[in-house]
Parts: sequence; C-alpha cells; structure tokens
Amino acid sequence: MDIEQFRKAGYQAIDRICDYYYSLEQKPVNSQVPPGYLRELIPPTAPEQGEDFQTIADDYQKLIVPGLTHWQHPNFYAYFPTACTFEGILGDLYATSATNPGFNWACSPACTELEAVVMDWSAKLFGLADHFLNSSEVGGGVMQTTASDSALVAIVAARSRYTSQHPEAKLEDLVIYTTTQTHSLGVKAALVLGLECRSLEVKPEDRFALRGETLRRALAEDAAKGKRPFVLVATVGTTSSGAVDRLGEIGEVLQDHSSIWIHVDAAWAGVTLACPEFRETAQLDHINRHADSFCTNFHKWGLVNFDASTLWVRNRKHLTDALDVTPEFLRTKQGDAGTVIDYRNWHLSLGRRFRSLKVWFVLRSYGAKGFRDYIRKSIDLNTHFAALVRAEPSFSLVTEPAFALTVFRLAPALPTGLPAAAQLAQLNALNRSYYAKLNARPDIYLTQTQLNGTFCIRFAIGAARTTRAHVDRAWAILQEEAAGVLAEWTAQAQEA
Amino acid sequence: MDIEQFRKAGYQAIDRICDYYYSLEQKPVNSQVPPGYLRELIPPTAPEQGEDFQTIADDYQKLIVPGLTHWQHPNFYAYFPTACTFEGILGDLYATSATNPGFNWACSPACTELEAVVMDWSAKLFGLADHFLNSSEVGGGVMQTTASDSALVAIVAARSRYTSQHPEAKLEDLVIYTTTQTHSLGVKAALVLGLECRSLEVKPEDRFALRGETLRRALAEDAAKGKRPFVLVATVGTTSSGAVDRLGEIGEVLQDHSSIWIHVDAAWAGVTLACPEFRETAQLDHINRHADSFCTNFHKWGLVNFDASTLWVRNRKHLTDALDVTPEFLRTKQGDAGTVIDYRNWHLSLGRRFRSLKVWFVLRSYGAKGFRDYIRKSIDLNTHFAALVRAEPSFSLVTEPAFALTVFRLAPALPTGLPAAAQLAQLNALNRSYYAKLNARPDIYLTQTQLNGTFCIRFAIGAARTTRAHVDRAWAILQEEAAGVLAEWTAQAQEA
Repeated sequence: MDIEQFRKAGYQAIDRICDYYYSLEQKPVNSQVPPGYLRELIPPTAPEQGEDFQTIADDYQKLIVPGLTHWQHPNFYAYFPTACTFEGILGDLYATSATNPGFNWACSPACTELEAVVMDWSAKLFGLADHFLNSSEVGGGVMQTTASDSALVAIVAARSRYTSQHPEAKLEDLVIYTTTQTHSLGVKAALVLGLECRSLEVKPEDRFALRGETLRRALAEDAAKGKRPFVLVATVGTTSSGAVDRLGEIGEVLQDHSSIWIHVDAAWAGVTLACPEFRETAQLDHINRHADSFCTNFHKWGLVNFDASTLWVRNRKHLTDALDVTPEFLRTKQGDAGTVIDYRNWHLSLGRRFRSLKVWFVLRSYGAKGFRDYIRKSIDLNTHFAALVRAEPSFSLVTEPAFALTVFRLAPALPTGLPAAAQLAQLNALNRSYYAKLNARPDIYLTQTQLNGTFCIRFAIGAARTTRAHVDRAWAILQEEAAGVLAEWTAQAQEA
Repeated sequence: MDIEQFRKAGYQAIDRICDYYYSLEQKPVNSQVPPGYLRELIPPTAPEQGEDFQTIADDYQKLIVPGLTHWQHPNFYAYFPTACTFEGILGDLYATSATNPGFNWACSPACTELEAVVMDWSAKLFGLADHFLNSSEVGGGVMQTTASDSALVAIVAARSRYTSQHPEAKLEDLVIYTTTQTHSLGVKAALVLGLECRSLEVKPEDRFALRGETLRRALAEDAAKGKRPFVLVATVGTTSSGAVDRLGEIGEVLQDHSSIWIHVDAAWAGVTLACPEFRETAQLDHINRHADSFCTNFHKWGLVNFDASTLWVRNRKHLTDALDVTPEFLRTKQGDAGTVIDYRNWHLSLGRRFRSLKVWFVLRSYGAKGFRDYIRKSIDLNTHFAALVRAEPSFSLVTEPAFALTVFRLAPALPTGLPAAAQLAQLNALNRSYYAKLNARPDIYLTQTQLNGTFCIRFAIGAARTTRAHVDRAWAILQEEAAGVLAEWTAQAQEA
C-alpha cells in the first residue's frame, strides 16, 4: 500500500468509525455469535498473493464487527467500563504511525519525556503527594499495560526490597497478602512468581473492606509459622462490590513492619480522586501517607482507550534495583550519564508502546474540569439507579453502592422460619435464573459476582454515552425480567 | 469531541501521517533533542478547561515529532527494525476504535477467534508443525506484547511443569539456562521470578552458538551441586550477532532430561522461516522436534506495528495449568463449557489489545509471497553490504553475517609483536571513537555491541524503505568517517 492508497483507506476507516458510532445504539450490546463462528468464515491459510485492501476493509465490517461486544454501547453495564474516546483513538493513531519500541530514552526521547510529564499531570489531577512525581526524582510514575501488570511489577519490587533487607529469607516462606475481595491479579501474581498468597477475610458488615485488626491477627499467625508476608495488595474499589480497604488502619498496623510493601490497586476507582469530594472515600490521605505504590487505569473509567494503566511508586530505586538489566547493546550515552529515565527498567517487558500520547490528548481536550464532570455524571447516574433499586421491595442492595457501581439481587419475602442456609440457596438459585434471563438479552449487558456466598448482579456505569434515559430503560428491563422470574418462582413455591 | 469533529480531526491525522511519510527521508534519523527538552515546553499541570483539538494536534507536530527517532527512516540500521506498515496502522486504528479488554471470549468473540485463526495462519507460514496449531486443540498460539513477555510466560509454564513433576524442588535450586549471547530477556525473567540464571559459554569459532557439549557439561556440574535447571532459552538469531544455537545438539542432550523445557526465542529472525531457503539455517526441523515453545515478533522484521509478539506452545495445558485464575466475576457460560479459549489464561496480564487484526490485515494485503519477498529483499541488501565490508582491508567482519545483520569493526594492521590483549584494547578504543563519530551524525543510525570483549558495530537492515542506494550511501558514510578516525589514529601512533 503506497501513501496515496493509505490516504484513501485511512479516510474510509475514519468514515466507518463515524458510522460505527452513529449506529452503536441500534446494535445488540453483546455479540450474538456462537463459539467457533469465525473459523468457518475464514480460509485456513494466509493467501499466497496479496489481496485488495478494499476487500480486507469490507471483511472487517462483515466478519469482525458482528463478533464484537460493544463496550461503548450506552446499555453496557458489565464488568467495568473500558473507555474509548475519539481523542484516545487519535492519540493512538499518531503513536502507531511513528511506531518505535520505546525501551530507552534514545529510542525516541519524546516518548519517555511525554510519559514523565503526563504521569506528573495525572498525579496532580488525582492529588497524589509530591513524592510520587517524576519531577521529585525520587518516586515517579510509569505507564503499564494493565493493573495486573502494575501489581506484578510492584510485587516484584517489594520482593526484591524484602530479600535485600532479609537475605536469609527463603522464597518458600514469602507470602503475598490480599483479601478475599482483591482482584484476581493478586492470585495471578502469586502463580507467576511461584509464591504463596494469603487472602485475608473481610466482612459484609465492614462492606467487604480489610480492617487493621484482621491484618494484625494474620501477621501474628504468620510470624508464629515462620512465614514472611512482604507485600499487601490493598484495594480502593474492588471489582465485585467497590469495597475500599481501610488504608488508615492498615498503615497503622504496618508501621512496625516497614519491610512490608503496600500496593494500592485502585484500577477502577482511582480516577475518582480527580474530584475533591470523593477523596475522603477513596482515602487519598492514607494513600499518600502509606502506599509504596499506587495504580489506577485510565483505560477503565478514565476516558483513555485500552491500554493505559498508570503506576506510581514512592521510590523509583526499588523498581530499578529489581528490574534493571543493561547489556552493551542497550547502552546509550544518555543512559550512562544518568540524565534520563530508561523506562524499560521500570517494568517487565523491554519494548513499550507510546501510550502517554493518548492520555495527553484526552487530558488536554477534556481539561481537568471535563474529566471531573464525566466522573461525576457516572456517579450521579449510579445514585439514581441505586435509589430505584432501594424503592422496589422485591429487589435488594447486597452492599452499599460504591462510586458508580451497584450490586443488587432479587430478594422477595421468603417463608418465615426457613434456615439461613436454605434462604441463601433459594435466593441464589432465583438470582442465577434471573441473571440467565438478563444475560440472554441483546439489549443490556451486566455481569454476575459472588459476595461471601451470595450470588449477585453488578450494575457498573461509565460508558460515555450512557444517559439517565438509558438507566431508566435498563431499570425497566430489570423489572420486566424480574416480574417473569418471580412469577415462575412463586408458582413453583406454591406447587412445592 | 463529537462524531463530526472526529471525522475532521481524523482526516487531518491521516493527511499528516501521509505528510510524515513523504518527508521522512528529509528528517534526521535520530532525534536531535537534548535530555529534558520537553518538560520546558509543556505546562506543569493539565489545563483546567478543555483545549481546542486543533491546538493539540498542532502541538503533536511541533513538540513531539522533533523528539522522535524515525525507525521507518531508510537510513535506520540500529537495534533491529521495528515494522510499521500502513496496513498495520489501519488494523490498529480499527481495533482501537472498538476497544475492549479482551480477557475472555465473551469480551468480544471476534478478538479471540481471529487471534486463534491468525496464529494458525502464521504457524503455517513459518512451517511450524501441526502440534503448534490452535486447531490441534493440544498446542496453540497466542499473541503477547514482546519477546520478553513471551519468554517470561514460557519460563513460568516451565517452572510450573517442573515443580509439579518434582514437588520436592526448592525455588532456590531452580536455574534458568541461557547463553552469554541470549537477549537480556533471560536475565530479566530471572530477576522477575527471583530465580538463578546461568549463562552458558559460547565461542567465536562456533559463531557464538550454544553447542550440545557445553550444555552437557553444565548439566553434569549443576547435578553435582544439587541445582535444577528447568528451562533453556535457546536463540535463533541473537541480538548481538544473529547467532543460532545448535538446536539439534541441544535437543539430543535434553532427550534424557524431559522435564527441562526448551524455549526458542527467534524474536527477530523467526520471520525468515516464511522462506523455505532459510529454514535449514533457522533450524525449523529442530524447532518442530524439540521446542516446547517458540516465539517470534511480527513487530520487528515482520511488517506488523509494535506490539505483536507471537508465542506458540506444544501443549497449551502447560500454560493454563500455570496461569489460569477464574474468579466468579470472570466466569462465562462459554468458558465454563470449555468450548472457547480464554486467552487471559495464556499470559500474565488480564486485559489484552486486539492485536491479531493488524496481523490479519498485513498477511492478507502482502500475501505470503509479498511477506517472503520483503524478507528476501532485506537479506539480499545485507549480503551486498557484507561484501562491501569484506572488500575493504581496514574493515573486518567480527563474525559471519546472519540473515540481515552484519557485525563489523575497523581492524587496520597493527604493529607486529603486540600482545593479543593490547591489540584488542587498541582496536576497541579505535572502534569506540569510530562509533562515537557515527552516532553523532543525524543521517545514519547504528548501534554498538560487544562479542566476547570485542567492541563492534551492528548494521541491521529491515526498514521497509531501505534500498540498495541507501545501503551504498551508508557505506560511503562509514568509509568517510573511518578515513577520519584512522588518520587521527595513525597520527597518534606515530607521535607515541
């Protein structure tokens, strides 16, 4: 493809993306294709001769688009939102057009330098303390692919710091602390590193937040067993229910355990820190006081297209001590002089995309005010949704709404005198049927979870095009399906 | 930004990318900015109010482009090439426009399914054996970010397989085998995992390839010490010199050590397997016979924009045994039924980009023939370059040219009777000065390396726009700078 052919195909791509967004609301939210649909539609080998690009571009529309689930659809309430903004698309397009592997400053100075600046912009937007800024030259920020990656990097740095302070420690004795509500990134890191992971208990009455007392007991038990916890992954906004671990209590307990690293995973809810009114709930002061590392993802609720996970550390030396490898073929005069950041030593991979460009585009185009307005809008919509749920007797909130997430279930009145376990089993069965009905619909998408054995349904708001009318329509669908399931359930109960 | 504003900004982006490629050859190859240039040009915080997108797009041209090193420049011979094709840009653009985190099949079935098919296309293009195909339902292929990531995943799977076979093994006794010429990804994986790495010796007379005998000796030594090597990272096309480890000998030695995993890292040279005439050199038969996993990067010399690392495994169960985590909120009915691949269990991160789309676009637009032609063109140019070096008495090849890489140095006649160490020191000093001169030029970009103490210069061909005229011009520059450096050196020698 020559330059003029690219211009033509590029214009067409832009036009088709416009068409995609104009027609988005008319599409089913989640793809309706069956497993294996694509292999039947595509030849088993690459073509020998090159094909005309128009055919290829048309095949994207014909074969691929029907297999997409539309995360930008205004009726998408599943998982967490994954941002896609036009500014982000354009940032990624420019970045891709001058692609480079970015593993050191010299690969393309702009990539490293813009990332260093944009991470400082973001730190300030979120109110992070000065020690997290790149300009501090002590701590600093770096972009990673995902929160799993960010957590793994933090845990590797924590292990490296711990074993350098305790050279006698055996890997077999090291323990990663998470809670039962921590995202699977904790267990995954343990699998990857071959280390033990201990999930600390959290309670419904604490809204599934880790308490200092639980941590203190675990530390004492593990000390007695000769185990060595070296990192705690705390969460601000868990995936299941938006729980916020009590960082103040945690920090206090860990004051006497200075070799235990605190990583705060705020992958989803971290962006709320942009708004002063949510900083107390999201525990900004405690993050600033206690966290050794902090992660949030712009690519969830932060208006920047996947992937754009941001990780800040209190002391960059802990990253580079753990991860710096510089063979001769990667040496540069700027790196040798120590005047530049070589970000490859701040993460796992060598090569890296130029991700900061899209963050820069988004933050400039929205401005801090636009960014905050967007977060506030999602939270307002969720407050509205939660009020609808509360007002309906056959529905119940499983825990308090958190930020822009509501976790609920059907909870009709049960025969009195039924033992608690039987109640739970009945309601779980009811809600599984209910969720199956919802999941079969093309016009709404939600996901399931479990909270201490209670099956529940998550309603996560954040797609940019979701309005109050969409939420009201979603609520109507939820009521309609509930009516059907409850009628069946009541009929069955009467038969039994 | 609304849809029509996006259309306008999108057209402009396409036009500006066209301008970039029209003007590419007139730009300096490597960026001329000093460290810290950007922080002075950008405000210290994000703007409070959103800015007009035209200003932002103009700032990209004004502030960012001068800080880019142009990896697509025809005079770029540094590191290894990083492909950027228009087809790749368009694939990435469509993928970004419908962004989703891709962690399971249900996220967007097309993403998983296209990846499964395209990995099979690629396996067949490279002549990989059937057991590596996704359609085999035993082995399979998955896209990762980088070769470092691919190697880390393979090593984690290897460790998991080893420790399940040898539950008594202590992590402290495990050893990763690499060679002194293996890419830093081996040492990095060891750092990340907290495991020991042993770099086996290779010799200039073997063209820096690992021999079976060296491996056999190391195994005996480590067995005597109670060490447990569990994975060997072998390379087809090392970064420094393009060396190819002797996979046949390695496979034979490891026949009696079935719990040692062989990972073949062919990040750069693997794409040559598309051409039947290079399959013997790149050891295809031995890869198919012995490798537990194989990696090559489309994003180096394979015409697909960064990132696009491809990893195949002989047995996918070894990946999922090591990496599968499925909490309730990630369960889906298709995943539960086992009818689909959930690629998140084949790598480290949870989320993943839709990378296969750009590979699909490139393979279809070039066709297998176009892909092979491109690889052959680079190798022909390198053969031409190596012949020029060979014909010039003051230059010397440090090792035989490999694929599209030539490693050379200045090697003028030295006074007779000088001890070998003094010769080496003199020539290293000479070549360091020579490289410094080359590195200061804006019109060519090469990188340095060391081979067993010998400082040398790498000339790596592969940018899509490099022609024979560019190589001849590069050679003229190399001769011109050599003449200057050699004249100074001779004058100094006469003074001394």
